Amino acid sequence: MLNLIRADSSDVPATDRGLAYGDGLFETIRMRGRQAVLRSLHLDRMVADAARLEILVERGELDAAIAQAGPAYESRFEGEDWVLKLTLTRGSGGRGYRLPAECRPNLVMSVSAMPPLPDKGGVVADVAQFPLTVNPRLAGMKTLNRLEQVMASREFTGREFELIMRDGAGNLVEGTRTNLFVRHGNAWCTPAAGNLAVAGVMRNYLIECLRASGHHVREGAIHPSILSSPGFRGLYLTNSVVGIVPVRKMSGVDLPVDVGLETICDPLTTLE
Amino acid sequence: MLNLIRADSSDVPATDRGLAYGDGLFETIRMRGRQAVLRSLHLDRMVADAARLEILVERGELDAAIAQAGPAYESRFEGEDWVLKLTLTRGSGGRGYRLPAECRPNLVMSVSAMPPLPDKGGVVADVAQFPLTVNPRLAGMKTLNRLEQVMASREFTGREFELIMRDGAGNLVEGTRTNLFVRHGNAWCTPAAGNLAVAGVMRNYLIECLRASGHHVREGAIHPSILSSPGFRGLYLTNSVVGIVPVRKMSGVDLPVDVGLETICDPLTTLE
Repeated sequence: MLNLIRADSSDVPATDRGLAYGDGLFETIRMRGRQAVLRSLHLDRMVADAARLEILVERGELDAAIAQAGPAYESRFEGEDWVLKLTLTRGSGGRGYRLPAECRPNLVMSVSAMPPLPDKGGVVADVAQFPLTVNPRLAGMKTLNRLEQVMASREFTGREFELIMRDGAGNLVEGTRTNLFVRHGNAWCTPAAGNLAVAGVMRNYLIECLRASGHHVREGAIHPSILSSPGFRGLYLTNSVVGIVPVRKMSGVDLPVDVGLETICDPLTTLE
Repeated sequence: MLNLIRADSSDVPATDRGLAYGDGLFETIRMRGRQAVLRSLHLDRMVADAARLEILVERGELDAAIAQAGPAYESRFEGEDWVLKLTLTRGSGGRGYRLPAECRPNLVMSVSAMPPLPDKGGVVADVAQFPLTVNPRLAGMKTLNRLEQVMASREFTGREFELIMRDGAGNLVEGTRTNLFVRHGNAWCTPAAGNLAVAGVMRNYLIECLRASGHHVREGAIHPSILSSPGFRGLYLTNSVVGIVPVRKMSGVDLPVDVGLETICDPLTTLE
């Protein structure tokens, strides 16, 4: 059974393995009143990734935490959307990497206001110099090992909405806090989950939604040269909180913003 | 200035970035009474790596924490050596990867008994199937992003003292909690710091000590084939707590244990 910790009123044991090793996961969920956007997908991902890490958690426990967060926090935000963060750790353990024989996971619940939403006309992005390295066995999981994103974020100058991280081959893999979608001709392209540090819940929703709407989605590498190739029609950044954000300028080059991904798929219809 | 947290009496704020992102470092120090083994090297590394992460800490603050730990904890261990763990985090911050404008680092101090020391005749090791992936810009640092070591440690069956992790090319890089030294002919070989997840303090001590003793040390890749090559004379595992441990059997194959690295360099002479 989970040990539920409300970050505004309780601390975390100093022996927590989330602190010691980043031994855990998190979800960042957009809330509207008491309802969560992409609720099922967030729960599905955390349960699936907890299983990959062998952290014992029931979907119902996480669902109950969201249900508890709504009444507890919504009034703080005066009708505005807000952000619920769930941090799941393996729990407390002694020194050493090996899993303790018994461990009661901690679930830390914290809330914050929505960040300012970017202009619908598109944002400015650039590439991060800090490289992204993905362990194939940890690929896609939103674990607490996020120092690469922290380090890349030091490169923000104030002009960019996002910095896009590259793999060793120079491919555009993902932003520090967003996934990428490219519209090319009549197809959509997004990096494959197996090559991602974080396979966002919004990304998964959009792939499903696009395919359900009859669009072709290719999961594969995105080389920067695609942005200047014939047929390129748009680059989008996506995450659970800000949704779908078109990029109007990348590395100083204007990009077309002519196809509205956000008009095809609207994540706010998933509120529950 | 640091916020010092004694893990046995205090918790850690749930907003700590060490918990959120693994945004911090740790040192595991072998103590004898009030003195620390490799004290200067531990302090040097934590200060150097904190600078790489832009965590503001003074060497004197860390030194003071060790000085405080001795009198506070030594009596618990009744004359036996003990282990002091220092966990340095960036401190508390709001949601998001970007560094907070102001941040007061937390230093968590925890202690434990020495683990059982292995037989001097050597230990059994095997390779881990879980791969090691090293971001070149984070290489060598003992950060709180240690999920790869946690996951590899799930493979322990109870027969191995250590599991050795490999890079994508199949080279032996490091154990889950140890560095590697190979004796080949009259030379020593250990993987280069730029390819390591953790460049241990004991490793750095041994390289310096061997060179000061007139030995040749090559920092470079260790392919498993070296273990069966002519001239191979021994494989050693090293870390700050257990010191120097020869391997007598690797992946089921007996290895020679004929040259005592521990007779050339004795880290216990560094007590201060």
